[in-house]
Amino acid sequence: MDVSSAAEKTAGTRIGQVMAAVKARIAARSLTPGAKLPSVRGFARSQQVSVSTVVEAYERLAAEGLIRSRPGAGFFVAAPLAPLSLAEIGPRLDREIDPLWVSRQSLESGETVAKPGCGWLPPSWMPQAALAKALRAAARGPEAGLSDYGTPLGLAGLRQLLARRLADAGVTAPPDQIMLTDSGTQAIDLVCRFLLEPGDTVLVDDPCYFNFIALLRAHRVRIVGVPYTPEGPDIARFGEALAEHRPRLYITNSAIHNPTGATLSPVVAHRLLKLADAAGLTIVEDDIFADFEEAPSPRLAAFDGLDRVIAIGSFSKTLSASVRCGFIAARPDWIEALTDLKIATSFGGGRLSSELVLSLLTDGSYRKHVEALRVRLSAARERVGRRLMAAGLEPWITPKAGMFLWCRLPEGLDAAGIARTCLEDGVILAPGNAFSVSQTAGRFLRFNVAQSEDPRIFPSLTAAMTRAAGRAAEA
Amino acid sequence: MDVSSAAEKTAGTRIGQVMAAVKARIAARSLTPGAKLPSVRGFARSQQVSVSTVVEAYERLAAEGLIRSRPGAGFFVAAPLAPLSLAEIGPRLDREIDPLWVSRQSLESGETVAKPGCGWLPPSWMPQAALAKALRAAARGPEAGLSDYGTPLGLAGLRQLLARRLADAGVTAPPDQIMLTDSGTQAIDLVCRFLLEPGDTVLVDDPCYFNFIALLRAHRVRIVGVPYTPEGPDIARFGEALAEHRPRLYITNSAIHNPTGATLSPVVAHRLLKLADAAGLTIVEDDIFADFEEAPSPRLAAFDGLDRVIAIGSFSKTLSASVRCGFIAARPDWIEALTDLKIATSFGGGRLSSELVLSLLTDGSYRKHVEALRVRLSAARERVGRRLMAAGLEPWITPKAGMFLWCRLPEGLDAAGIARTCLEDGVILAPGNAFSVSQTAGRFLRFNVAQSEDPRIFPSLTAAMTRAAGRAAEA
Repeated sequence: MDVSSAAEKTAGTRIGQVMAAVKARIAARSLTPGAKLPSVRGFARSQQVSVSTVVEAYERLAAEGLIRSRPGAGFFVAAPLAPLSLAEIGPRLDREIDPLWVSRQSLESGETVAKPGCGWLPPSWMPQAALAKALRAAARGPEAGLSDYGTPLGLAGLRQLLARRLADAGVTAPPDQIMLTDSGTQAIDLVCRFLLEPGDTVLVDDPCYFNFIALLRAHRVRIVGVPYTPEGPDIARFGEALAEHRPRLYITNSAIHNPTGATLSPVVAHRLLKLADAAGLTIVEDDIFADFEEAPSPRLAAFDGLDRVIAIGSFSKTLSASVRCGFIAARPDWIEALTDLKIATSFGGGRLSSELVLSLLTDGSYRKHVEALRVRLSAARERVGRRLMAAGLEPWITPKAGMFLWCRLPEGLDAAGIARTCLEDGVILAPGNAFSVSQTAGRFLRFNVAQSEDPRIFPSLTAAMTRAAGRAAEA
Repeated sequence: MDVSSAAEKTAGTRIGQVMAAVKARIAARSLTPGAKLPSVRGFARSQQVSVSTVVEAYERLAAEGLIRSRPGAGFFVAAPLAPLSLAEIGPRLDREIDPLWVSRQSLESGETVAKPGCGWLPPSWMPQAALAKALRAAARGPEAGLSDYGTPLGLAGLRQLLARRLADAGVTAPPDQIMLTDSGTQAIDLVCRFLLEPGDTVLVDDPCYFNFIALLRAHRVRIVGVPYTPEGPDIARFGEALAEHRPRLYITNSAIHNPTGATLSPVVAHRLLKLADAAGLTIVEDDIFADFEEAPSPRLAAFDGLDRVIAIGSFSKTLSASVRCGFIAARPDWIEALTDLKIATSFGGGRLSSELVLSLLTDGSYRKHVEALRVRLSAARERVGRRLMAAGLEPWITPKAGMFLWCRLPEGLDAAGIARTCLEDGVILAPGNAFSVSQTAGRFLRFNVAQSEDPRIFPSLTAAMTRAAGRAAEA
């Protein structure tokens, strides 16, 4: 062994020591993902090695991908950013079908783009005059309404009104079994925090509302999809999933299913609850589209009597998504625990929002507004459905109500690819696999009929389809 | 063995079988805590045993505490309600010093009680005229403001304004490093979801804002308190805690500390950040009392440059707690991940709230309102401080700003006991141990000077203290 190689070996050992020291800190989480590493000089001093040894050690760690350099700022731990960086959880999906990306696209883009893929009504469909009136009424209202926190359960008057509305739908929930939240999403999130542990299994419909998938990822649970039929979940497959996966929870929309627009049939509802009973399964029934229905369809919460079903509602779809207000109706002991959780994680709710919603629901115009919405949506479903069929898209069913048409592309076409092409024209679509746990809806797109009459949409869509069909024929 | 004992043994075996079947379901979580057990008749059929066997099995399980009977409703699994029932997590505390109970009491009770223990200003101290004006302006504003979701980061105009305000406080955060939330509490909760895993350790000040404790319990982390001095956390103890517990996070208020009203000194801030740097510790600086300060005191976020510090703010304390709006300023990559988490768990934020806050902050009256608040609070601190001292309570320090006076009772008196007595008179106090992880603040009470001039308070307080002192002398 000559001198130079011995020196090299010693240097190598020292570099190795420094690397090991950094790795140990990362492992012990004293250097956490995203954290800045000690400065080269400082670390050289503390490790009693030369500056060049630390430089080399840092370079090698960067080459290993453990740390990364930000020019001018130093080195940072590059491990997966954090346990709850949602981008790191779950299978890597193409951006076009990533649930969060679809949400962010729709939320981000202002009025300069067309959003047939988004899940809410345009402002012009919302009760603007009534909203303005409610704001003016709040401005004249009692001081506490404008400046104080809400009570733990939320505004009593609104809970009383919700209890009456739920009773009309066959769900018995006294006001003290109803807790107001800032939104339907927050309501489901609180229920998940209450009932789930990381690693638990949760059933969803396949397809289902894509934000259920993003939300459940945040809870780090296993998500299992059950194929959805025009009458509700496939009961045989539902039973198999219960037996195989022993899920803790099932999350669904029964009245107007998102994205398909389907409605749960009484027989499926009954069988579903029998299976849930036998398996001790808890069900979250997210009923935020309730008021779009012409005639009331079965509610699991009504059949079950809030024993194992937790009912969720909100007014984001019929009144305003800007005035955030949702609610949970559930068993008294669960409401008690959920209230603690709500206070711990968001303190009081927004009193102003619930005052506004109460004022809107009681000012007499709500019923008329909702009736007009139904008529308008029905006409739009008809018109947009015809145009979609003419363009070669086939609605999976003819929904009885709501804003969604779940449509199949001709064979050989891929919805994510079409969405990518249309995005270049400023048209935001909602490709099927964003809604599908099993990734089996690659030929589907969800259309919101209230957002589908922008003149840019159909030219862009048909051009994208023609191009894709051309490429498919070539291949 | 005679016939009757053989029959008994068989019956015993059958009862045991039924009990085992129930226990297996509970263990497998197919019967979950709070779930209803199958009906006696149904279970007898499915287990092929007699009804009386099931009755006996259920009775024995109830005697074991595994299930409980609700008259007229059946039997229910009685195991700890759910993993995230906050009431079940952490040490059992007397109701009077339970953080959640203190919150709920203050939030629940309307204007019929006096709330010297609550953490916000009375409605009459809030800018009611400006709030009403902002509501009327929103009523005239663009449609989307009243009915659409907020964007992922939140209203751009408000984020620009916040960036300027933060710059004034020495914190450099461009608008795209600021994300709006529904409240300061939601902001901290999102950060915790992002950075913490169950079992991690988090440092808090001892004493600290009691809802930090409730919030951290919801994240199922270990909470370690560091004694707080009038200049900030005890730096020697802080260093020891870092070495011993390797915490992931430290949550604090630096400007006006809750509950003590103390202000972080520059030297402690500097030492704290050096320690945090060396240990790779992330810090959440909850600065919701910022605007109460007469002269700006050191901010960790300003010293650190949002490298390892996450700054939190809200307007619940100076504008309105009814109009919910908070924010997070942090590193760009963290803001990105936090935005995903916000969408997944609450979808868009409340656009109306941020429009109202923006309108309130820019209408010219905010500065005057806040200046008036400072003068009014200063006078109230002086007046209430004198009355408290006259009553035998000793303020721990004389705070430079804010609404809180942290006061020590005479020796031998217990704050929780005093709080219990005063509650009977409709006076809600905030006893020290609700704020103390180590439960070493049993002689302290936090007073909100803006809520302490109700005529019921001092007679009730002095009577309770006199009675307690009498009992202490007897014992």
